[in-house]
Amino acid sequence: MLLVEPKNFQLQEPLELDCGRVLKQVNIRYETAGTLAPDKSNAILIEHALSGDAHVCGRHAESDPKPGWWDEVIGPGKYIDTDKYFVICSNVIGGCSGSTGPRSVDPDTGNPYNMDFPVITIRDMVRAQKRLIDHLGINKLLSVIGGSMGGMQAMEWAINYPESVDCIIPIATTSQLTSQNIAFDWVGREAIQGDPNWNKGNYSADHIPQKGLATARMLAHITYLSDESMSRKFGRELQDADSYRFAFNRDFAVESYLEYQGRRFVERFDANSYCYITRATDYFDLASRCGGDLAKAFEPVKSAFLVVSFSSDWLFPTEESIKIVRALLKNRVNVTFCEIESSYGHDAFLLEVETLGTMIRDFLRNRQKVSND
Amino acid sequence: MLLVEPKNFQLQEPLELDCGRVLKQVNIRYETAGTLAPDKSNAILIEHALSGDAHVCGRHAESDPKPGWWDEVIGPGKYIDTDKYFVICSNVIGGCSGSTGPRSVDPDTGNPYNMDFPVITIRDMVRAQKRLIDHLGINKLLSVIGGSMGGMQAMEWAINYPESVDCIIPIATTSQLTSQNIAFDWVGREAIQGDPNWNKGNYSADHIPQKGLATARMLAHITYLSDESMSRKFGRELQDADSYRFAFNRDFAVESYLEYQGRRFVERFDANSYCYITRATDYFDLASRCGGDLAKAFEPVKSAFLVVSFSSDWLFPTEESIKIVRALLKNRVNVTFCEIESSYGHDAFLLEVETLGTMIRDFLRNRQKVSND
Repeated sequence: MLLVEPKNFQLQEPLELDCGRVLKQVNIRYETAGTLAPDKSNAILIEHALSGDAHVCGRHAESDPKPGWWDEVIGPGKYIDTDKYFVICSNVIGGCSGSTGPRSVDPDTGNPYNMDFPVITIRDMVRAQKRLIDHLGINKLLSVIGGSMGGMQAMEWAINYPESVDCIIPIATTSQLTSQNIAFDWVGREAIQGDPNWNKGNYSADHIPQKGLATARMLAHITYLSDESMSRKFGRELQDADSYRFAFNRDFAVESYLEYQGRRFVERFDANSYCYITRATDYFDLASRCGGDLAKAFEPVKSAFLVVSFSSDWLFPTEESIKIVRALLKNRVNVTFCEIESSYGHDAFLLEVETLGTMIRDFLRNRQKVSND
Repeated sequence: MLLVEPKNFQLQEPLELDCGRVLKQVNIRYETAGTLAPDKSNAILIEHALSGDAHVCGRHAESDPKPGWWDEVIGPGKYIDTDKYFVICSNVIGGCSGSTGPRSVDPDTGNPYNMDFPVITIRDMVRAQKRLIDHLGINKLLSVIGGSMGGMQAMEWAINYPESVDCIIPIATTSQLTSQNIAFDWVGREAIQGDPNWNKGNYSADHIPQKGLATARMLAHITYLSDESMSRKFGRELQDADSYRFAFNRDFAVESYLEYQGRRFVERFDANSYCYITRATDYFDLASRCGGDLAKAFEPVKSAFLVVSFSSDWLFPTEESIKIVRALLKNRVNVTFCEIESSYGHDAFLLEVETLGTMIRDFLRNRQKVSND
């Protein structure tokens, strides 16, 4: 059994942010698995998605019932083999799973930041990670890998620290959020901020905006699934009934499922963090830094790329990945691209374990060969 | 100028509902335009969608700034020509624009029903309409026409009153809500019912669940547009700014637009009605009455059909219309089908006026010819 433990790293220097503000004290929660090679050439940074955390693989204790979120992919002998690679995963800043975020204490006031926390960007998240990687003494990562928001971070690595990564694997992601993506995020935050407990973000730990956060999560959850996968999984099935109850309360199985997802989410996620992290993704737009020219944005890139999309992902559809691939090719970047046929929608990046895992494993092997040549 | 006036019809007998309950007193608000022919062969019933009402065309007064919701299509000399046809449109029961709904007074208690109002179905809406049509002395409607939820009602007419309609025009609709459709409705109602003012539906007129209803509307609104039309209309444009504000409040134009849509909606729509009407659509499933066999559900049909879908509608996509067409064809129903190429998404049924209007006009003309032969 792979045992891992949460670690903390306090940034030595303040962190300057895209918004112009500075975070004086920053903690990064991270975990590692595997052993760093003496030449430090086998380090892989995994980037988590919106609601993920640093606990990417293994268990915290023998008795721990729940492994990390990508444990099917990462571990001894698995696709990302911790017998070969040194895997690092850190919780993003702005998050609520150990790294500094809106619920952390503002050293200037002694109170939680809440909505006084600065609005952060995906690049800010990566800036903080770079400090961690420096701290670990790693000059060059073998790879940065991530799905969804994790893929956005991976691309920021390639652009901002081109000498520091050999290869990048952005999965089920996009170079910019569309109008529709931004709109869904907006509605989610409206649900949170309309909750009677929200109190402009200054809620107490025992009166959290539970209902609002659950509603935001349920909405987002729909966008992670495909129409087809929902139809296959739930269809119009009723929950413990043979005929309509003519009532509003969870008549359909899909309603019951969503309610369960919402309820579970509020147990582990913070409402203010949800607002900050979705906002960071809204602001994500690589091309905008170069007058809308995505190819120009990728000019600094020196890493090789494996870009993966899923056929039924309607949140970040394949066309978005193709835009990325085209822009990389204009810069003569070494790019491999694959659209995986899947009915799981956006969530496929967590579910198509075998196809995706095999692809990542082989790509990493080839990169290692190249590096060793 | 076409002037119309709201009329009221009180059902003479109680209305039995699908849920087994009975509405003792039912008012139907309706409007008419044009003149009923002496042989009463020129009557067309228009069915409104979720948030529509009886005011389908013309104006209530010379000074009235806002015409009915389908005024571009219906009126003297227009596609549905009120110089030729007698057009009727009634507000659905369960609604909040004059017909009996959850905010009406329960004759048994003297108080508003609110959430004690029975859960109604699309078929119940049509049952009430049939009484109105009988009251108007019309044996056979020339046509029943409706988009979205209006199309569901139109199909119920064809199935339940096959002798009473010559032709049916269901537009941008479906024979059953999918799991994803039900899920979006659920999240919208969760937003309403999470509003601090909701009070289990017993809100007072000056403390309505404004924020929750606005959130539900904003969410639904996203599903009415296509990704493409949103990108074209808003893209990632900022609202009155050149660069990010690093704030949460309406930074993007699309956010500002949605907020405006939400705000406008709460001025004219009731939160409880929103719950009841979305629930009626959730329950809509023609095939389920015949063990999942849609063709069997259409067996009673005697009317001709013109079925119209829109290429970018992802709420009720073209495949749903094709299912309807196939099931009708199995019953040798006279069906015409057209998918209109449009980027407007579901809303196209209100926006593609010329293409859709022309199609309806010509179809009606042909039907009249057939009837006169």
